[in-house]
Amino acid sequence: MTSHYPYPMLNPPAFRWNRPQPLPTDPKVHEWIESLDEESAKTLDWANVDVTLFGVPLSRSSISASGASENPHALRQAWKGFSTYNLDEEIDLSSLRVVDLGDVRQHVTDISICHQNIIQAMEAMRNHHPYTTPVAMGGDHSITAMLVKGWKKAHPEERIGILQLDTHFDLRSLEDHGPTNGTPIRNLIESGTIHGEDVYNIGLHGFFNARSLKEYADQAGVHYVTLKQARKKGVDKTVQEALSQLKQRVDTIYLTVDMDVLDIGAAPGAPASTPGGMQSDELFEAVRIAGQHPSVKAMDLVCLDPLRDVREATVKTGVHVMLSFLTGRIQRKG
Amino acid sequence: MTSHYPYPMLNPPAFRWNRPQPLPTDPKVHEWIESLDEESAKTLDWANVDVTLFGVPLSRSSISASGASENPHALRQAWKGFSTYNLDEEIDLSSLRVVDLGDVRQHVTDISICHQNIIQAMEAMRNHHPYTTPVAMGGDHSITAMLVKGWKKAHPEERIGILQLDTHFDLRSLEDHGPTNGTPIRNLIESGTIHGEDVYNIGLHGFFNARSLKEYADQAGVHYVTLKQARKKGVDKTVQEALSQLKQRVDTIYLTVDMDVLDIGAAPGAPASTPGGMQSDELFEAVRIAGQHPSVKAMDLVCLDPLRDVREATVKTGVHVMLSFLTGRIQRKG
Amino acid sequence: MTSHYPYPMLNPPAFRWNRPQPLPTDPKVHEWIESLDEESAKTLDWANVDVTLFGVPLSRSSISASGASENPHALRQAWKGFSTYNLDEEIDLSSLRVVDLGDVRQHVTDISICHQNIIQAMEAMRNHHPYTTPVAMGGDHSITAMLVKGWKKAHPEERIGILQLDTHFDLRSLEDHGPTNGTPIRNLIESGTIHGEDVYNIGLHGFFNARSLKEYADQAGVHYVTLKQARKKGVDKTVQEALSQLKQRVDTIYLTVDMDVLDIGAAPGAPASTPGGMQSDELFEAVRIAGQHPSVKAMDLVCLDPLRDVREATVKTGVHVMLSFLTGRIQRKG
Amino acid sequence: MTSHYPYPMLNPPAFRWNRPQPLPTDPKVHEWIESLDEESAKTLDWANVDVTLFGVPLSRSSISASGASENPHALRQAWKGFSTYNLDEEIDLSSLRVVDLGDVRQHVTDISICHQNIIQAMEAMRNHHPYTTPVAMGGDHSITAMLVKGWKKAHPEERIGILQLDTHFDLRSLEDHGPTNGTPIRNLIESGTIHGEDVYNIGLHGFFNARSLKEYADQAGVHYVTLKQARKKGVDKTVQEALSQLKQRVDTIYLTVDMDVLDIGAAPGAPASTPGGMQSDELFEAVRIAGQHPSVKAMDLVCLDPLRDVREATVKTGVHVMLSFLTGRIQRKG
Amino acid sequence: MTSHYPYPMLNPPAFRWNRPQPLPTDPKVHEWIESLDEESAKTLDWANVDVTLFGVPLSRSSISASGASENPHALRQAWKGFSTYNLDEEIDLSSLRVVDLGDVRQHVTDISICHQNIIQAMEAMRNHHPYTTPVAMGGDHSITAMLVKGWKKAHPEERIGILQLDTHFDLRSLEDHGPTNGTPIRNLIESGTIHGEDVYNIGLHGFFNARSLKEYADQAGVHYVTLKQARKKGVDKTVQEALSQLKQRVDTIYLTVDMDVLDIGAAPGAPASTPGGMQSDELFEAVRIAGQHPSVKAMDLVCLDPLRDVREATVKTGVHVMLSFLTGRIQRKG
Amino acid sequence: MTSHYPYPMLNPPAFRWNRPQPLPTDPKVHEWIESLDEESAKTLDWANVDVTLFGVPLSRSSISASGASENPHALRQAWKGFSTYNLDEEIDLSSLRVVDLGDVRQHVTDISICHQNIIQAMEAMRNHHPYTTPVAMGGDHSITAMLVKGWKKAHPEERIGILQLDTHFDLRSLEDHGPTNGTPIRNLIESGTIHGEDVYNIGLHGFFNARSLKEYADQAGVHYVTLKQARKKGVDKTVQEALSQLKQRVDTIYLTVDMDVLDIGAAPGAPASTPGGMQSDELFEAVRIAGQHPSVKAMDLVCLDPLRDVREATVKTGVHVMLSFLTGRIQRKG
Repeated sequence: MTSHYPYPMLNPPAFRWNRPQPLPTDPKVHEWIESLDEESAKTLDWANVDVTLFGVPLSRSSISASGASENPHALRQAWKGFSTYNLDEEIDLSSLRVVDLGDVRQHVTDISICHQNIIQAMEAMRNHHPYTTPVAMGGDHSITAMLVKGWKKAHPEERIGILQLDTHFDLRSLEDHGPTNGTPIRNLIESGTIHGEDVYNIGLHGFFNARSLKEYADQAGVHYVTLKQARKKGVDKTVQEALSQLKQRVDTIYLTVDMDVLDIGAAPGAPASTPGGMQSDELFEAVRIAGQHPSVKAMDLVCLDPLRDVREATVKTGVHVMLSFLTGRIQRKG
Repeated sequence: MTSHYPYPMLNPPAFRWNRPQPLPTDPKVHEWIESLDEESAKTLDWANVDVTLFGVPLSRSSISASGASENPHALRQAWKGFSTYNLDEEIDLSSLRVVDLGDVRQHVTDISICHQNIIQAMEAMRNHHPYTTPVAMGGDHSITAMLVKGWKKAHPEERIGILQLDTHFDLRSLEDHGPTNGTPIRNLIESGTIHGEDVYNIGLHGFFNARSLKEYADQAGVHYVTLKQARKKGVDKTVQEALSQLKQRVDTIYLTVDMDVLDIGAAPGAPASTPGGMQSDELFEAVRIAGQHPSVKAMDLVCLDPLRDVREATVKTGVHVMLSFLTGRIQRKG
Repeated sequence: MTSHYPYPMLNPPAFRWNRPQPLPTDPKVHEWIESLDEESAKTLDWANVDVTLFGVPLSRSSISASGASENPHALRQAWKGFSTYNLDEEIDLSSLRVVDLGDVRQHVTDISICHQNIIQAMEAMRNHHPYTTPVAMGGDHSITAMLVKGWKKAHPEERIGILQLDTHFDLRSLEDHGPTNGTPIRNLIESGTIHGEDVYNIGLHGFFNARSLKEYADQAGVHYVTLKQARKKGVDKTVQEALSQLKQRVDTIYLTVDMDVLDIGAAPGAPASTPGGMQSDELFEAVRIAGQHPSVKAMDLVCLDPLRDVREATVKTGVHVMLSFLTGRIQRKG
Repeated sequence: MTSHYPYPMLNPPAFRWNRPQPLPTDPKVHEWIESLDEESAKTLDWANVDVTLFGVPLSRSSISASGASENPHALRQAWKGFSTYNLDEEIDLSSLRVVDLGDVRQHVTDISICHQNIIQAMEAMRNHHPYTTPVAMGGDHSITAMLVKGWKKAHPEERIGILQLDTHFDLRSLEDHGPTNGTPIRNLIESGTIHGEDVYNIGLHGFFNARSLKEYADQAGVHYVTLKQARKKGVDKTVQEALSQLKQRVDTIYLTVDMDVLDIGAAPGAPASTPGGMQSDELFEAVRIAGQHPSVKAMDLVCLDPLRDVREATVKTGVHVMLSFLTGRIQRKG
Repeated sequence: MTSHYPYPMLNPPAFRWNRPQPLPTDPKVHEWIESLDEESAKTLDWANVDVTLFGVPLSRSSISASGASENPHALRQAWKGFSTYNLDEEIDLSSLRVVDLGDVRQHVTDISICHQNIIQAMEAMRNHHPYTTPVAMGGDHSITAMLVKGWKKAHPEERIGILQLDTHFDLRSLEDHGPTNGTPIRNLIESGTIHGEDVYNIGLHGFFNARSLKEYADQAGVHYVTLKQARKKGVDKTVQEALSQLKQRVDTIYLTVDMDVLDIGAAPGAPASTPGGMQSDELFEAVRIAGQHPSVKAMDLVCLDPLRDVREATVKTGVHVMLSFLTGRIQRKG
Repeated sequence: MTSHYPYPMLNPPAFRWNRPQPLPTDPKVHEWIESLDEESAKTLDWANVDVTLFGVPLSRSSISASGASENPHALRQAWKGFSTYNLDEEIDLSSLRVVDLGDVRQHVTDISICHQNIIQAMEAMRNHHPYTTPVAMGGDHSITAMLVKGWKKAHPEERIGILQLDTHFDLRSLEDHGPTNGTPIRNLIESGTIHGEDVYNIGLHGFFNARSLKEYADQAGVHYVTLKQARKKGVDKTVQEALSQLKQRVDTIYLTVDMDVLDIGAAPGAPASTPGGMQSDELFEAVRIAGQHPSVKAMDLVCLDPLRDVREATVKTGVHVMLSFLTGRIQRKG
């Protein structure tokens, strides 16, 4: 079938909710987010689009068994229960124009094709409409390396920094098992896409990282603040300081949220969440602050497996994380 | 069957635990709470009763599917695991006399009959023994409008205020779907039962209320403090201030606790609980403080669906909320 | 079968992970902890052993139905997912030598034999290698009385104090039902093994202890700080103060962690956990601080039932508690 | 909003899957079933439509708490996992044209409006395109009375028989609680819509019907075959005989499938399913045979609550029941 | 507290449902079964009682962790959902007079006291009212040995046979662990209470019995029919033949139903249920046939753990087993 | 680390249970199966080995998210609960010598390496000890193609037939997504490893296969018997006939069991199990009969995801399937 869809690497969302004319007074999230398909893609005025959402349903690159590939669909179902109105901030997200581009095409048995598609999808996105903020719904954490590489291909001159909210360093060696979900930050450093010193990890704690990874982080100059340290200062202030420091060195800050940064009680559906992790409200605030920063230009949310969730708590939290980021977008400063 | 039970609209509790003679030294809650039946109703000395508990097993008026009708039974089962002794406050609840009146009669297919029965039950209760504190175990939130209307019918001269602990405004219009669980506060305002300015809502947050409801609240003069704001000052102090302000305007303060005010991790069995909500200990303290206030004269607990609970966590939390309120009763000031 | 294993009351662990030669650079916990069997027992140099782990798979002495007997096995399975490196403290546990001795033998229908075996196991352990720190994986809380009695038999001259992290006093009378999981502290006091004043309980709250038990505690001079009080000062400081006071009176402090001290959201697999309990990170810190204290010489972890757990959250938390204690060991002061 | 949709009582399906042009070689069910919306409704050639599917998301008329209102949505999600090809019968359902009309509008607090809407929806359907086979996705069993009444209003001259696959008689009195899910057959008899003797119930068993209902059934001439009796002869033959006998008396046979006819192991998501019930394959065959019969002209499937399901087993079984009926349609004889 | 209750070893049921006067036309099981308490015990006319139900909440004698102690309470809760009318057999159980005596007293840490209490309870029951049929709700299978021993003490002259529906022989040696749930039949044989040849076990299958137990069974002359063999002939006929053969040798046949005889899909709440086991309807019929036999004079139901159940399927099946037995009682022949 | 283990592609089992000397009288399965490690591999007398078990923990090649990679570990844990004695057949499996070789090494992000390793593992196994029966614990169904290819490489002269127990054809095209779990049979046919006519599929049913796959099967000459047809004749007889026919054409019959052939109630942990599938006892018998046949020389068990299981029912069923096959081995004819 010949396709006129501008993204050869993206499947338009199967679940289409075209924006009604006009938008209801009190929209739910699914009534507000526009879903692009081959028809609507032809006429869309990209200059008006603020945010481009897309799914990356890949989790076969995960070290342990994961159903994070089901997450984009789960988020799309769950956001029907959310209003666009953020009461805490008195902000209505519906002033943003958000388009759901669908899912990046995946291959079942050739993971390198999956990864190439992700790189190309981000590259195409940056070339077609560089003023939108891409928000990726993973998938496992291996996708972050690909998304940032795609960005770099579109903007080779830019220096890119990473703000990572995570329980893990994700600095494992690629030698043994290739670009798994344990490797994205190392992948980016070793491929020369980013500098180690341009990574800020907030949320590490406990017994969930090997010592050698900490040593690698130190050698590579990766910045990190454990959750314990962050809480002493305030997670919100810690995030602000990280952004300020990054701002002085880089052109673009990429925000990556690994849902396993959350406490296991708050995120039973993140396969690697642990006891002693971040609380939901800390994460919402961290992400909102990141969204406010003008240098933060893209975001992903990874490692959420809806198949293991309890009462949809983690999926709902995932939606809230995305909406908190978009709230920050509207509050963007400078 | 001819009935001599004084409440035509109440079914005596099927599960009867008449107080042993005498009460054990270390009673469990079910050994302390007295269950009224037709026989014991004839001889009860109401002047000695402090609190009248009753169930309102109605949830077919809920917008989304809910089993909150099962909650009164679940609470009665779960409180067998609780002592009457509050160690934090060094208070033994058994100094209060609490009578369980049973459940308000419900109709399966005519919700307006259900609602009328609730109104009449509260009215009768206030007329029969106005010095007891009624505590209602819902049911969904639609019942609050009925309970307050019943109070108003018995005490037409009183000005009634509402202290609402809730993630939602419950200010939806009654036009489309009648008195659902999304409407009780608006129902009370529009029926003239209360003034908008006499409502204090504590606990709102996130993306769970439409903008138009916030605008309605503002127009109606409803007071609200988001959870984020409340935490900055302390939830306990926020409650105290709300009570102080209400006290200056109203005769009676009615406390309504929607269990969805709690975080989804703490209350998986509240169908509309969300990430980023209140923690259990904050709620226990809020309710205890309310219980202390002499103007707080009635309470309800709504929107707890035991069918969706995980390891009975929410039901146990519901019992604890009630017992915290009763602790406050004993600590009542002035 | 004739056995050369030095502990007649202990079964060597069925699940053996002998330490590889040499230990990997980045060991997981199961690669680091050495499992003793009859062969390796013959040649082990006990002088080099820091910690002796063992399971006490007894829960038929629990008042209500409990599968805490499955806990030692569950912890051993779950710790395969933990690194030995504590990132918060920048400490690698692998500098400690920890040996898993297996499980204390249990009898199915004679609980007094079970209890005698536990006493003898601890006594033998103290006699064979008194410089190791025993860490017991329960089982229900009845085992604590036996473990401390075993210690006392090996060290009759020592004065022993108890640091108890628990939602309950565990001071029930032994008259009605013998040494159940509700009685260990009273058992130790009434048997003259410890003095009431040498018990410090931190974590009590809510409606989960009868008034008479509080009165018994007061009469016996048991020290206790409710969770609410502890939080005002900081749980960590409260623990430090308790240790300092105990230090002035006793030779040995025994740490007992009842997992039901945790909030029901954090520990769904502790059958008696309640709403309003401790959070995981508070407990980790409390236990680490206890581990640092030179007078704290043994620890147990009880009342964790893996059969009721949700997504292994409680079991993982149990492993983390143990590892936090061992972190403290390395940080031991004085 | 002015609507051009021909069914004032039906909401078009929110989840739209318009038939691709052309249908894939190997369609999944959602690619084959056409979803009608206001646009497509204008041009649809009803003469080519074989089956009209619609949802009846009403379960607040259920005696005990039920989430069967979620069933139409759940079926639509689950059928994406089904092929249109029935391998057992070597029949491809895609030769039928099936249109999903959406859901009958429901009111939250006025159940009589819900019931009226259902009656009108069926009546309109029969008037607009009387040659299609309506298939209703309930909802609780109260809807059956309304659907059959709607049919009768459109075809007052017809004599209608009922083939009921159910664990219950559904012959409760309407006096106490109105038209609940326990009453539909009695409702139809007492309203004169059908004759008692034109009801054939297959699947009754055990202790799930009061004796008085059996006596009512006998007096009303209702035919019934217990599951035990049916199995002796074969459930398939029992169904065939019932159809043959009905055929001699009535013009139209209406098939109603209460999912609680299934064994509790096979249908954990049917709130009233019981041990000792029908097996899935027996039900599939029963329904297929009914579908073959030229007098069977409509079907419903009720009392499936996806909120209580285990691993979606019951929802998948529900889809299979519908597809088995449609297989029978293609095999229709005479 | 001085007690006038005739059974020193039995606690009257906490959950009391005294028979209403008169019984409703269509009683539910809890409205029909009379609960004895100290008051009603004084005046009860035992000559009119047909069946004496009682709970034996002991499962600490179970080899693996079990919550079968919770079963009597769970059955009493669940039978509120059952009618007394058996539609298959057109029999109303309410023609039997059934009294619930409460639970046999248990000790928490001395299992031998538990076992003695069970023996004494059955002995007292046989002495007080030898014409009633005792029905015991276990508890684990160790109780069967005690119940039969109690019978034998009351009727030392009787020869007792056992009809055992079970996946296991329950012939383990008592030497290692005493009278566990793996030993009851051997316990009875070796104590001389019964002859090995008077045991008929129906339902064995698969890999769930050690070879030595089969050899013991052969040596002891125990009769057994595997499930596979039983199905070839019909489980119902197999039961009838076993009863006929037993009848020729013994005075009294005791029926013991281990719920793990059921397939794991049908009985997820029986801790030792296995794939390939009996189906519910086979068990219901087997038990009904046993109930019909005049020599069958007592029954127990064991090893049902409600804490592990899924959607109450196993508990509901347990109630159905009991009611099927009582149906047989009414159909008793000869 | 230099390895002396003879299988470069296999990891020795981490969970080692070396056979005790001597085997206990009544062994459990884990006491009987010998686990090979590098040490024991040096001295093992392969001539005495009957069966070589190994795990293939690959499920990232699965079309939909699957945790079947966890199955080998889960089976090894669960078989500790099984006796070696098959009571139905009066056969003790311990007369077979079974060695567990461990797991085939897998790569995280290069599935073609995984597949190559599987081919090589089977090839090496056939070359090292061609008289043992390999039994593979999958993993997803893609592994079957690799295992049979490995066999073919070791025995290029042999004609190989397949007996497939499955709900699906597994004949999808490899063009789109490579060798997924939907393709193994087509993979084998198109690679020339087997002839289409040498495949017998038993168990197909319902709406779970596209029509084009059925047409492909017909063209390729694949034999298949639907479950419905098989039941008419008896599943056991159907299997015997398939084996007899295969025997006339091929040298070696390879048995592959896809656990999704089972009904969804029996196998909730098989991600693609469906309503209307095979019952456990039918499968056990089918596999036992296959095991008896002298031409059946290898077996695999695939598509069992322990992460989705309910009460371990599917994992226990998986163990039972393997033991039933081994029972057949001992009963081998001719």
